[in-house]
Amino acid sequence: MSSNQKLNRVEVCFAPCDFHQYEEGFDLIVVIDVLRATSAICTAIEHGVSGIIPVATLDEAREYQKKGYIVAAERNGAVVDGFDIGNSPYTYMKPELKGQTIALTTTNGTKAIRIAEQKKTVVIGSLNNLQSLCDWLIEQKRDVLVLASGWKDKFNLEDTICGGAITDILLESGQFTSDEDSSVAAKFIYRSAKENMFAYLKASSHRRRLRALDLNADVSYCLTPNNVSAIPILKDGILVPLETVA
Amino acid sequence: MSSNQKLNRVEVCFAPCDFHQYEEGFDLIVVIDVLRATSAICTAIEHGVSGIIPVATLDEAREYQKKGYIVAAERNGAVVDGFDIGNSPYTYMKPELKGQTIALTTTNGTKAIRIAEQKKTVVIGSLNNLQSLCDWLIEQKRDVLVLASGWKDKFNLEDTICGGAITDILLESGQFTSDEDSSVAAKFIYRSAKENMFAYLKASSHRRRLRALDLNADVSYCLTPNNVSAIPILKDGILVPLETVA
Repeated sequence: MSSNQKLNRVEVCFAPCDFHQYEEGFDLIVVIDVLRATSAICTAIEHGVSGIIPVATLDEAREYQKKGYIVAAERNGAVVDGFDIGNSPYTYMKPELKGQTIALTTTNGTKAIRIAEQKKTVVIGSLNNLQSLCDWLIEQKRDVLVLASGWKDKFNLEDTICGGAITDILLESGQFTSDEDSSVAAKFIYRSAKENMFAYLKASSHRRRLRALDLNADVSYCLTPNNVSAIPILKDGILVPLETVA
Repeated sequence: MSSNQKLNRVEVCFAPCDFHQYEEGFDLIVVIDVLRATSAICTAIEHGVSGIIPVATLDEAREYQKKGYIVAAERNGAVVDGFDIGNSPYTYMKPELKGQTIALTTTNGTKAIRIAEQKKTVVIGSLNNLQSLCDWLIEQKRDVLVLASGWKDKFNLEDTICGGAITDILLESGQFTSDEDSSVAAKFIYRSAKENMFAYLKASSHRRRLRALDLNADVSYCLTPNNVSAIPILKDGILVPLETVA
């Protein structure tokens, strides 16, 4: 890299309510909701689901049900009564979902996607697709804003760790810089957590919430980096495999 | 401590815009703005200033000027034209300010104080008065919410480090617990920064901003723990020494 090459920015926004303070100048957004929406979406696309329609409300989700779609709905960690599936990544590995388009609404993740969708490019990140996503982001030579879904618009640890991981990898490429304190903090948190994320997150509020629901297998899966290579991208309101768009 | 003694909560709120998401159930708030408003306020009270009137706007500050008060006004790191002083802690050590009541408006800190003032008890925290503040908080046996002033309503590193330091000390006392991910993250950030805060904050956006203004001496002072024992407390809209209230 020549020393006068312009660096791109990578920044982390901790929650959807802060998006308006960070989004200026960015048209490439990575949405993350590690536990579990975006981990499930990456897994679904990896396993052959054709498309995921992110839906903000349960009412919208019911409209898709009436139209005959498979509809996934999660609130507060549990499948909502009357819907087919929730947001456990394992659900989306089932062969019968291959080739299907699924409507999905979750507590945090799908709302963050809807907030980001005004932007030119929206892709889905997780620890699962960390390396393939970062490889692709580095190729784009564009400024990148990572939008963490948080928990009900509050900062959460697991999304910050994932945002910090993306920031760390992009900065290490030598082609990016970060200006915001949130990005610097996310990188530091990732670095102190990376060797044992499961233990690190024991203290997190969301982990405690999921523990009550006995979702340890899901949590272990979601905290496993690089077991997926798919990069879901938003096209005409549907999350589809990146390679079908380019 | 008996094992069935009820623990109090200590939580960190990263910025005034998040206050409504965190404040429920708290009536004891610690406001921090490490660079430099609350460091200056603690220093002023330590050095014999009688009271500081936190003022949100420059217009209000001018009203106090007309009434004959000494008025301090800072915006974006600099003293505002037409005002006596800014928020450099060194300013407040001057003997001629002893016994005076000063009106103060700053970019972030005084706004955070005004947001907190609906609560029963508002005290001022900084790294400078860290240990004496924590000793007092532990004696209170009440839930404690630390409100970071941030930078223009965004997360910032230096206030988060100070919030994490307070959280760490209170948790170590065995009388407190934290539920929020923001508090857990602040504690981790403090622990990784504590050995060399000056270097850690090199990356921070606010440090870069102050560097341009050549305020390294101020920054060094503000990042020095426990060089002050005063605890300013809000009484009838004026920050006064704690011992004059109790």
